[in-house]
Amino acid sequence: MPFERIAIIGTGLLGASVGLAIKAAQPGARIVGSDLASANARGARKAGAVDSLAEPAEAVRGADLVVVATPLGAMPAVFQQIASSIRGGAVVTDTGSTKARVMAWADEYLPAASFVGGHPMAGKTSAGPAAADAALFLDAVWCLTPAPAIPGPAVDALVDLIGRFGARPYFVDPDEHDGLVASISHLPYLMAIGLVAHLGREPGWREAATLAAGGFRYASHLSDSDPRMFADISATNRDNLVRRLDGYLAELHSLRDAIAADDPRLRERFEQARNIHQDWLRSRDQN
Amino acid sequence: MPFERIAIIGTGLLGASVGLAIKAAQPGARIVGSDLASANARGARKAGAVDSLAEPAEAVRGADLVVVATPLGAMPAVFQQIASSIRGGAVVTDTGSTKARVMAWADEYLPAASFVGGHPMAGKTSAGPAAADAALFLDAVWCLTPAPAIPGPAVDALVDLIGRFGARPYFVDPDEHDGLVASISHLPYLMAIGLVAHLGREPGWREAATLAAGGFRYASHLSDSDPRMFADISATNRDNLVRRLDGYLAELHSLRDAIAADDPRLRERFEQARNIHQDWLRSRDQN
Repeated sequence: MPFERIAIIGTGLLGASVGLAIKAAQPGARIVGSDLASANARGARKAGAVDSLAEPAEAVRGADLVVVATPLGAMPAVFQQIASSIRGGAVVTDTGSTKARVMAWADEYLPAASFVGGHPMAGKTSAGPAAADAALFLDAVWCLTPAPAIPGPAVDALVDLIGRFGARPYFVDPDEHDGLVASISHLPYLMAIGLVAHLGREPGWREAATLAAGGFRYASHLSDSDPRMFADISATNRDNLVRRLDGYLAELHSLRDAIAADDPRLRERFEQARNIHQDWLRSRDQN
Repeated sequence: MPFERIAIIGTGLLGASVGLAIKAAQPGARIVGSDLASANARGARKAGAVDSLAEPAEAVRGADLVVVATPLGAMPAVFQQIASSIRGGAVVTDTGSTKARVMAWADEYLPAASFVGGHPMAGKTSAGPAAADAALFLDAVWCLTPAPAIPGPAVDALVDLIGRFGARPYFVDPDEHDGLVASISHLPYLMAIGLVAHLGREPGWREAATLAAGGFRYASHLSDSDPRMFADISATNRDNLVRRLDGYLAELHSLRDAIAADDPRLRERFEQARNIHQDWLRSRDQN
């Protein structure tokens, strides 16, 4: 059993799901949870994701593994609260959606900890510990960004645990991670927000809403995600997001101009995009 | 039984699904099918969506109801081929994704027919008669754009049939229809095409594709739709699409600028968009 005493700081959907996944993988593990929102704390205990509750500094005392699953914006304060209570040799990880700033905060506030940044590429639009699920991480990619000079066994133990969740550990540079998720996760969210905000302001929205069906459902779905999470993501991944939005805007502008000009190559552009998408679907089926 | 002899010109996914829905609603109906692509024609007969096959002009002879379910781009030619064979009093309808140009073609080529433009708001990304399904139209909105001065009983008979499919008839002006579907169907498609085309061209696409999960799946899904159908839509709904893309581009630009400026109201904008989306979801659940 790689970790026997575990602290989870932040017991919303992700933190509580990590707790349930640990309990499923290692029924003997003792988990202490902590959450500023008492509903999240109580909910995680009720769900069986944690065994007991405590303030952050108390929760991490004696833990082999500390999982920080709070909103990104709360992490600097949490790191400072727990810094002096973490025992030597403990592994500290997080579940934040961006990694470069988290690694900088860990370097600043937790210089003595074995910090391995983490980002499970899993989630759902429903939030809170009541929606938590040990199976949330099954077949999900789990990005890992170990701090430089961290001991190998600490990383190995975390990789082993994540593997027991059914997730696939994926080592990546923090800056590279943030560029990649800007493309495949944060841009798609902003696309959906832009669609809903734009159409919702139109005088014809009420009638359009009546007709909206499957196409709109797909394109708007991600606008249901947690606004606070994406405000934090926007703040901690600003430059990548702006660069990625600029590239996407240029592509849409070019499509707009092709439509305005009755460009006969439009169908070919649609076919090429479909081919890229179908290649992606096939590559996923093979994994 | 409002219609006893029916012709379906174009027996791909939609045309064959109409055939199956008619057979389910009126087992005694006789349906003649026609499709330029012999695989579609044979597939529709094999699926039981049509009883026999014929050239368009032959298929419509003696029919009470003619359903033109070809690609939009083929409709002017089909209308001309069948014009002189349609019997007096027959109702002619179509399933095209845009309506203003279709109504103009019907006015020009089928001046003697009782033409009721139609657009079932249903579909899937898989194509062809093998994917046809009588239940495709269940609970779907079916837009209807009757030509001016068409006899009331002709419209009533079509409304009755569509109701038997489980669909909800929705009368709308052709120009208004095209503006609405530009917003809730054609823009979402172009958003997905733009995303896939933009990311697929990037040097880091291979690695991004490995990490892409649920968010990308939603945002890219519609790029799988029929390229020919959307090239025809772009050609027949150009002005609405350009106007709608301009509005969406302005919204995304404003989001981009807010992110670049660390605008503290970003979270509020995300919340507002989520509220609009959740209102839409609730209004659908109530129907």
